Amino acid sequence: MRMIHVIGIGAGDPGYATAQAVEALNDTEVFFAMDKGEAKSDLVDLRREICETFIREPGYRFVELADPKRAKDGDYRQVVADWHEARAQVWAQAIETELDVDGVGAFLAWGDPSLYDSTLRILELVGRHLAFDYDVIPGVTAIQALTARHRITLNDIGEPVLITTGRQLRAEGLDGAAVVMLDAECSFLSCPASTRIWWGAYLGTPDEILVSGTVGEVGNRIVSVRADARARHGWIMDTYLLRPTG
Amino acid sequence: MRMIHVIGIGAGDPGYATAQAVEALNDTEVFFAMDKGEAKSDLVDLRREICETFIREPGYRFVELADPKRAKDGDYRQVVADWHEARAQVWAQAIETELDVDGVGAFLAWGDPSLYDSTLRILELVGRHLAFDYDVIPGVTAIQALTARHRITLNDIGEPVLITTGRQLRAEGLDGAAVVMLDAECSFLSCPASTRIWWGAYLGTPDEILVSGTVGEVGNRIVSVRADARARHGWIMDTYLLRPTG
Ligand SMILES: C[S@@+](CC[C@H](N)C(=O)[O-])C[C@H]1O[C@@H](n2cnc3c(N)ncnc32)[C@H](O)[C@@H]1O
Ligand SMILES: C[S@@+](CC[C@H](N)C(=O)[O-])C[C@H]1O[C@@H](n2cnc3c(N)ncnc32)[C@H](O)[C@@H]1O
Repeated sequence: MRMIHVIGIGAGDPGYATAQAVEALNDTEVFFAMDKGEAKSDLVDLRREICETFIREPGYRFVELADPKRAKDGDYRQVVADWHEARAQVWAQAIETELDVDGVGAFLAWGDPSLYDSTLRILELVGRHLAFDYDVIPGVTAIQALTARHRITLNDIGEPVLITTGRQLRAEGLDGAAVVMLDAECSFLSCPASTRIWWGAYLGTPDEILVSGTVGEVGNRIVSVRADARARHGWIMDTYLLRPTG
Repeated sequence: MRMIHVIGIGAGDPGYATAQAVEALNDTEVFFAMDKGEAKSDLVDLRREICETFIREPGYRFVELADPKRAKDGDYRQVVADWHEARAQVWAQAIETELDVDGVGAFLAWGDPSLYDSTLRILELVGRHLAFDYDVIPGVTAIQALTARHRITLNDIGEPVLITTGRQLRAEGLDGAAVVMLDAECSFLSCPASTRIWWGAYLGTPDEILVSGTVGEVGNRIVSVRADARARHGWIMDTYLLRPTG
């Protein structure tokens, strides 16, 4: 049966690749990748760098998958569901066409495949169109990159921590420690000035930026540093840990 | 100045070691390890296995650090603070004695050093006794191992997920998706029967056990599987993801 590895490649530094990921990379004949357009071409480069660094006998191919357009309006969940199904059809066809019946393909997932990533959800849908087997190789997430680079713990002793998005933070407010991802709007500004923040962008890469302090002290600095960096690179990936004071 | 690497070694499979961790392992002269007593000797073995697998020129030493006794009663936070300070003094002395002034040592942290692990907190205290430098190498956590082995996503699309402990789950109840760690008491039994659970023990090791379903369907089975495994091994490490239904 066709085999697909879903490989977590870590969130930034090629050195975040695990030994297990390296084995899976070397086992792979075809790497399937979504065509994400110009803006994020640095990220595509990083994927290729990982393959070039860790694959011992380069007999592999890259296959770019067209990314179906997402409907502009309609119910959010339905729009996403339709879009995932459209992707699943593209993927099913590519897997069938590009791999022999006993071939091995892979999807490279940024960081870890389980965290704010749709690869696994789409692969599950692909299963309705095509019989194939797959496994998942865990990876170092942006959360681990953030805490390692700041040399901090994620949780206080025995305390919980929430993983959430900018949108959710704005909607729900902060109630205990939280890591915020997918935030295009500096949503930490909605928190009390005394809230402590550890912020990181392009973590694990040569362009890494780290800022920490309280929201009152460093909030505006992060806003301007972030805007500058985003303009310079054409894109940004940032994440942060918040801890309420008192 | 003396240098200490705090190395996340991944939570189970030696294959979870990252390329960056392997570099840091090879850079290390002295591995400091807490003496955790008989029960968890499998875990000590796993650490040694990682060193043996990945270190190219074995000139390193292991130094066991006596673990100061934790006070039996008193305020929980104070007890932990005193215990950390006692450890810090032991560590400071060992680092000073065992390493040359430009020597390189390491602490191996299970999974990732930021997650329910006290190494970084204690090292911060060591800094009050001794000048030294340190860096942190992120690792694959038990959470990533859990989701990879179940081939599931951690979060629903755009939704948050809480990382918490068994104690907290019992105290606070379940409100949205949660990963539960450090739970010696099968606290998932306190959740509604319709709650979905993905449970894993000894993840990434040859003894791995996976169970999933609803708490109503598989809760009691997990309790008995867990008790049997714990009796057989003398210890257990398990974690699980909960998702309320509806
Ligand atoms: C679509 S999610 C994917 C997360 C990924 N699966 C992981 O395990 O980290 C992308 C978000 O992750 C965070 N992120 C990923 N890589 C990052 C990096 N190197 N530096 C800062 N944030 C990063 C950002 O919050 C970004 O919006
Ligand atoms: C003291 S915490 C350390 C967590 C570690 N720093 C990490 O990143 O996963 C230990 C808890 O992690 C979880 N855990 C660690 N390794 C595990 C494994 N291989 N299988 C299942 N649970 C594990 C269990 O919940 C255990 O009680």
